[in-house]
Amino acid sequence: MTVYANSSEGTVHWERFLAERTKHMQSSAIRELLKVTQLPDVISFAGGMPAPELFPVREIEEACGYLLREEPMTALQYSTTEGYRPLREFLAESMAKYGIQHSPDNILITTGSQQALDLIGKMFIDPGAPVITERPTYLGAIQAWRAYQARFLTALLDDSGMIVDELPTMLNKETPRFIYVLPNFHNPAGTTLTEERRHRLVELARQHDLIIVEDDPYGALRFDGEDIIPIAALAPERTIYLGTFSKTLAPGLRIGWIVAPAEIIHRLVQAKQGADLHSSTFDQMIANDIAQRGILKVHVRKIRAVYNERRNVMLDALEEFWPEGSSWTRPAGGLFLWARVPKAINTFDFMRTALAKKVAYVPGNNFYPENDGGFDAMRLNFSNAKPEKIVEGIRRLGEALKEELIQL
Amino acid sequence: MTVYANSSEGTVHWERFLAERTKHMQSSAIRELLKVTQLPDVISFAGGMPAPELFPVREIEEACGYLLREEPMTALQYSTTEGYRPLREFLAESMAKYGIQHSPDNILITTGSQQALDLIGKMFIDPGAPVITERPTYLGAIQAWRAYQARFLTALLDDSGMIVDELPTMLNKETPRFIYVLPNFHNPAGTTLTEERRHRLVELARQHDLIIVEDDPYGALRFDGEDIIPIAALAPERTIYLGTFSKTLAPGLRIGWIVAPAEIIHRLVQAKQGADLHSSTFDQMIANDIAQRGILKVHVRKIRAVYNERRNVMLDALEEFWPEGSSWTRPAGGLFLWARVPKAINTFDFMRTALAKKVAYVPGNNFYPENDGGFDAMRLNFSNAKPEKIVEGIRRLGEALKEELIQL
Repeated sequence: MTVYANSSEGTVHWERFLAERTKHMQSSAIRELLKVTQLPDVISFAGGMPAPELFPVREIEEACGYLLREEPMTALQYSTTEGYRPLREFLAESMAKYGIQHSPDNILITTGSQQALDLIGKMFIDPGAPVITERPTYLGAIQAWRAYQARFLTALLDDSGMIVDELPTMLNKETPRFIYVLPNFHNPAGTTLTEERRHRLVELARQHDLIIVEDDPYGALRFDGEDIIPIAALAPERTIYLGTFSKTLAPGLRIGWIVAPAEIIHRLVQAKQGADLHSSTFDQMIANDIAQRGILKVHVRKIRAVYNERRNVMLDALEEFWPEGSSWTRPAGGLFLWARVPKAINTFDFMRTALAKKVAYVPGNNFYPENDGGFDAMRLNFSNAKPEKIVEGIRRLGEALKEELIQL
Repeated sequence: MTVYANSSEGTVHWERFLAERTKHMQSSAIRELLKVTQLPDVISFAGGMPAPELFPVREIEEACGYLLREEPMTALQYSTTEGYRPLREFLAESMAKYGIQHSPDNILITTGSQQALDLIGKMFIDPGAPVITERPTYLGAIQAWRAYQARFLTALLDDSGMIVDELPTMLNKETPRFIYVLPNFHNPAGTTLTEERRHRLVELARQHDLIIVEDDPYGALRFDGEDIIPIAALAPERTIYLGTFSKTLAPGLRIGWIVAPAEIIHRLVQAKQGADLHSSTFDQMIANDIAQRGILKVHVRKIRAVYNERRNVMLDALEEFWPEGSSWTRPAGGLFLWARVPKAINTFDFMRTALAKKVAYVPGNNFYPENDGGFDAMRLNFSNAKPEKIVEGIRRLGEALKEELIQL
């Protein structure tokens, strides 16, 4: 038991007051890594950070000026939990283009997508209750739901996304609170769920009367091929869809959203009231202003072109510098690819070597809910570093891998 | 069981997936009321809203301009969960003036004070675990902790704040996860905990080795008398102190903070990582800029003078217009007073009459965790409406009360 003291008059045995769930919480590797990777000479492929030099700074400054001149009493005041109505109207319209037919009343604005994951966990997960995720899956979801003591059942991924045919056996034994899927440019794997598998997933969910959580932070960032219909468009009655401005506008604003059937939104609103009352009114109105003026659309086109180039640079550099026995996914969009190293190397242990060479990534095991896989893999982000840094970082990693292999 | 359908192809029996805790959540009366009170002709004493005409709009616009010119890549990017370091440094210095001696490492920035309450609940409350609050207490705390299925034990308030002498009997039978207290200008009661009682509370907490949660959103808004030493200054080893910019700067920015022993902060950081990664970087930097340039200090002096006047106007109007048998607290600061009506009237039922007269308040029962009291009381906010509106609203309420009494 930890004894804490910083007063001469008292010590607290505070650990005896901890909730059971708190013992299941862990610090996110990514968050801890961010601290290291903020050092200016480290080339980081670790975070999921947008390219900061592309932020539409002048446009955001204009939005601030406009809002503070025209609507300061609204922009700085408390607002409703559901979120700023014009923004929800914009989102309803913009998602309709992807086939998601929902009204603004079906939308809840969240403090980033991470809060959406937390609220969903709070709403649905009892201690020990099963949830189905992909294997690997987004570590922020693992972290959010571990805090509610979820039991993770996992379905493997391949190049076509979740292997949906793994589900029937699972579903005959267990009834998950929901099935969590990242269909587009998967974090961390970079893969995309095929249309055929989306239909099959919906069919299974209907057959077993289940809820699907569709996490889609990167859907707008497609470089190759055509958009694939969202699951929320195929099964609006049972899909909770998550979107965010973090990748398309600016993560510092912490604005995401949930689209779901009205009754589910109603419960999530209750959960959000207790969690933070509402998301920043000012940031919601900035995002709305940028979106409504058509700036977002232009901006997304721009970052898509830049990230496409960076993905290509990273793929070429991997080809050039990495040792035989390595492999990687070729994402059609998004921010990440998933690289496998020769089996002899453990990517968790290798992190120390990489950091000594001033390169950072996220070791693959962080994306396995039970920490029981991914030791030969790493997640590499290609959106944040500039092309010459990408080449340099991938070269350094490749050399370090080769040195390691020689020593083994 | 609710059956939801908005697709021709499926219905979901989603309630069977709800977590046990979700069944304990309720919508906040205040949030639901806000919707009504946004109608322009309603005089609202319901919310806890600052006077919007006093927001330092020009200064915030300058801060936005400055930040987006000088540090756009930081202001719009992801940041650490702990919060923007210069802001935490400012807060550490500024709290030292009140006797709270903690380093910036003991501070976690939260998405408003409401998130602090949620994170504390997440960290400490198992289903059925006891927590001690005042009676009445802040409804946002009730809402946050009900979601974690807390069992509420309550200690009565009088004009000197929590009746600390009620605690020993409770503490002989139960070990609460923490004792929650609003020492300054209590929400909803408007009362202030005397220095003597603060010492007594700390003594009891030390004797039983307990944690105190000190919620202090209004401490800077004192109109009469001298500041009283914070509990966190008396017992830094066992106090979790909550502060916020919502009342001193602007609630729309959603920036609050927690000060606590380092080990507790460490756990709360883990909980916050899963909850929303971090609070808006941009809003944190705006608050920091306003604070560091000394604008906050000047601004607080200004709103203090205005709220002081409004409190006086409300007290005078109550004296003039309310029926015999009514009584109210005389807060030395803050945003609220607590008014009792003649016993024959139920303030929850009377709300409909009041809204018909276009005046809103929060019925007292909302501040009782078990909804078992406060039916002869209401919370009245005096910060939001202008003096002439305050007089008019209190007059309308007084007349309605008198009419009601005649009919009974």
